[in-house]
Amino acid sequence: MPDASLLNAIRAIVGDRGLLTAPSDTAAYVEDWRKLYRGQTAAVIRPGTTQELAAVVKLCAEAGTPVVPQGGNTSMVGGGIPAEDGSELVLSTSRMNRIRDVDPADMTLTLEAGVTLKAAQIAAAEAGCLLPLSISSEGTAQMGGILAVNAGGNNTVRYGNARDLVLGLEVVLPDGAIWNGLRRLRKDNTGYCLRQLFVGAEGTLGIITAAVLKLAPQPKEIAVALCGVPSVQAALALFTRFQGHDAASISAFELMSGLGMSFVLRHIPGATMPVETPSPFYVLVELATPRPNAGLRAMLEEILEAALTDGTVLDAAIAESDAQRAAIWKLREEHSEAQKREGASVKNDVSVPVSKVPAFIAQATAACEALIEGVRVVPFGHMGDGNIHFNLEQPVGSDAAWFLAQDHAIMDVVNEVVRAFDGSFSAEHGVGRLKPYMMPDWRGGVELALMQRIKSAIDPNGIMNPGKVLPAAE
Amino acid sequence: MPDASLLNAIRAIVGDRGLLTAPSDTAAYVEDWRKLYRGQTAAVIRPGTTQELAAVVKLCAEAGTPVVPQGGNTSMVGGGIPAEDGSELVLSTSRMNRIRDVDPADMTLTLEAGVTLKAAQIAAAEAGCLLPLSISSEGTAQMGGILAVNAGGNNTVRYGNARDLVLGLEVVLPDGAIWNGLRRLRKDNTGYCLRQLFVGAEGTLGIITAAVLKLAPQPKEIAVALCGVPSVQAALALFTRFQGHDAASISAFELMSGLGMSFVLRHIPGATMPVETPSPFYVLVELATPRPNAGLRAMLEEILEAALTDGTVLDAAIAESDAQRAAIWKLREEHSEAQKREGASVKNDVSVPVSKVPAFIAQATAACEALIEGVRVVPFGHMGDGNIHFNLEQPVGSDAAWFLAQDHAIMDVVNEVVRAFDGSFSAEHGVGRLKPYMMPDWRGGVELALMQRIKSAIDPNGIMNPGKVLPAAE
Repeated sequence: MPDASLLNAIRAIVGDRGLLTAPSDTAAYVEDWRKLYRGQTAAVIRPGTTQELAAVVKLCAEAGTPVVPQGGNTSMVGGGIPAEDGSELVLSTSRMNRIRDVDPADMTLTLEAGVTLKAAQIAAAEAGCLLPLSISSEGTAQMGGILAVNAGGNNTVRYGNARDLVLGLEVVLPDGAIWNGLRRLRKDNTGYCLRQLFVGAEGTLGIITAAVLKLAPQPKEIAVALCGVPSVQAALALFTRFQGHDAASISAFELMSGLGMSFVLRHIPGATMPVETPSPFYVLVELATPRPNAGLRAMLEEILEAALTDGTVLDAAIAESDAQRAAIWKLREEHSEAQKREGASVKNDVSVPVSKVPAFIAQATAACEALIEGVRVVPFGHMGDGNIHFNLEQPVGSDAAWFLAQDHAIMDVVNEVVRAFDGSFSAEHGVGRLKPYMMPDWRGGVELALMQRIKSAIDPNGIMNPGKVLPAAE
Repeated sequence: MPDASLLNAIRAIVGDRGLLTAPSDTAAYVEDWRKLYRGQTAAVIRPGTTQELAAVVKLCAEAGTPVVPQGGNTSMVGGGIPAEDGSELVLSTSRMNRIRDVDPADMTLTLEAGVTLKAAQIAAAEAGCLLPLSISSEGTAQMGGILAVNAGGNNTVRYGNARDLVLGLEVVLPDGAIWNGLRRLRKDNTGYCLRQLFVGAEGTLGIITAAVLKLAPQPKEIAVALCGVPSVQAALALFTRFQGHDAASISAFELMSGLGMSFVLRHIPGATMPVETPSPFYVLVELATPRPNAGLRAMLEEILEAALTDGTVLDAAIAESDAQRAAIWKLREEHSEAQKREGASVKNDVSVPVSKVPAFIAQATAACEALIEGVRVVPFGHMGDGNIHFNLEQPVGSDAAWFLAQDHAIMDVVNEVVRAFDGSFSAEHGVGRLKPYMMPDWRGGVELALMQRIKSAIDPNGIMNPGKVLPAAE
């Protein structure tokens, strides 16, 4: 347990406002927003600078006290929550929230870990650029955490994941040393690519304290359409057509099911359908480009007309205004909320190769329906990057608790199909505290052994975010 | 030294055609093409499959015999050459040259390490896709080596480096275990990002035996122009203009100097200048897009006309045919050859942030001219990604040997400027055997210590490509 002398030494570094110890002050930091976990901690430490944070980690390392890095505490998998036994200290980056530099010539943004994604987007926009990353929690999620989990989101189809935006990092290592890798080079072949090791390691190898991100030019034209399609296969055909035509303009390509859409229309006030023909599946396509006079709207019309003619698309509506664009996006964004209001649901954040999405959805649907009579399959998500939120809604009239008790059985049959397509059991949410038990089965053998060797090499005493990502060594 | 029993055991795995021992057969494998190094080896092993290669590595590991992985042997820094003492065996991937899969729906290409970049480009093109990587040695360089050194080239400005094209890898580890990480997922957050550790490690952590690469859609329209500009600053301004207009269409943005251009015109048969006004610097811009009817040519004209009007560009010529396009590219591609024919030269493969290229060239030029009276500065290269080949030509009438004897002094003053801009001493060529001595000075302290810890964790006995990338431990 962290003792008083350690906390006093930490207080001497971060000051009174940098150390929270009253349970009423620390409560918000020891529970995740999904309320999957409630941990305990003697203190939440909030350093103001990288130097303070490094000094704190050094003290903790010397005392053998584990630390749990935390950003906006928006993890879907409990990645920032300390253990229940009170042995770990929480290290919050929220006070380290300076934009250090925006360079529109270089197209780079240098910022500290505690900057929210929203604030980072705004800083980029004010410099006439685009930070091409967007996730639902962007108002709260902090860049340190976002990089630590390699967040994905809606724009991966065009810009990749958080990982793909990172040129440089500053990291505090488990012994308190600071690695300054804040280079902003597009080419640099001088040794191992350390930054990509820390991105996605979920704070188990060190704490990301600052980063240099690549920016993109701001779009000058955006076009959004909602399309009813007869099948997931048709959705894929439509995606391939857009990709062959102007891949660089596809900023989102999202799939929804007819059933999921009906939940949104039933439960979400103000949700309205811009197309008339009811369809088994729907696609939201967003095109965006920094080119002036690009004629995106005309291109969209041309592709959709051809698709309507040959039956790839059953019906389509193109947004005529910002308000209509927002209304179409609302249909997609309210999917989780609508499923919640419809009843109990079990979630799977999985991915397969893009070309396998139709077969995956067909087989996973059949498997779930065979497992639970009347279960309602509501897959939706990022078709353009193969990441499907394969969610299951309880059968009409069934008992919610009975349904939820079968969550592991459901996840197992879904994952069996995912595995057959060489997919991933965690596409964009990470492993955190929720899924390390799945690692031996999915990434076991040589791969997990490599990860464990790296963990031991960089954090030999295991003080960095213990119990996350990797299963406990046998 | 590898003994006969080891070689016999290896022969039992790879067969006679997989084992070269006669000096006449191994000669081509022990010298790099720049002729910087000539090593010695008891055998060159050429396995036909990943399983054979793994079995060989396992035997070598048990015997404590180091192995030197080698692809097309096109390294600029001696990365694939064994030591002079004959203690190391060369492991060539050249027989492992199958394209395993091309998937135009998924936009992925799965191939073995021994496939040349050219063959990979052709396989992608036959499936209607583009493998967006191009380097001078592409006819010979093999994909395993290309990924091991994270090759860059002309298209980094648009598509990133080799690293950015890798979705999955298969790697044989120093103990002979095979890591099958050949996933083709766009999103997969299940633990540490191992693939990016092997990419750029130059074979010091394991041998890349196969990879899944991302493809891009094939361009339907290409437009190339050569522009005379008054300064490097103007070249940067022109780049920024193209980037703000249609960043996704810039497939190359190359800088040349007036002096460098005069060498090409003097020494390269058939080289002709498409613009009349002599300029201090020149830019080659290539635009390409898969959009049909994109009007690239019109856009290029519009931007260049505005730039001619405001003096950013002094003169410009747009290629009217494939032949003219090739003629403009020839002016750029023959820069190295022309410099060689002009006399002795010293090369620096460096990078700085893109916005710093003008200041870097100005300061490095002044530093070199102060060091050697009459030295002729001929910088050229990938302005769009900040990678400049800052080359120096001997003063007119000077002694070549006298000039070359000052190569380290020249590199030192150039690197001092590079360092002031937080740049890189090896932008796209890697560290290899030539530059590990520079690592402590440039990447020393925390960063190099991290690399060494990772090396020890993955290759504890140091049998993988010893003496490359990392300096010998003290």
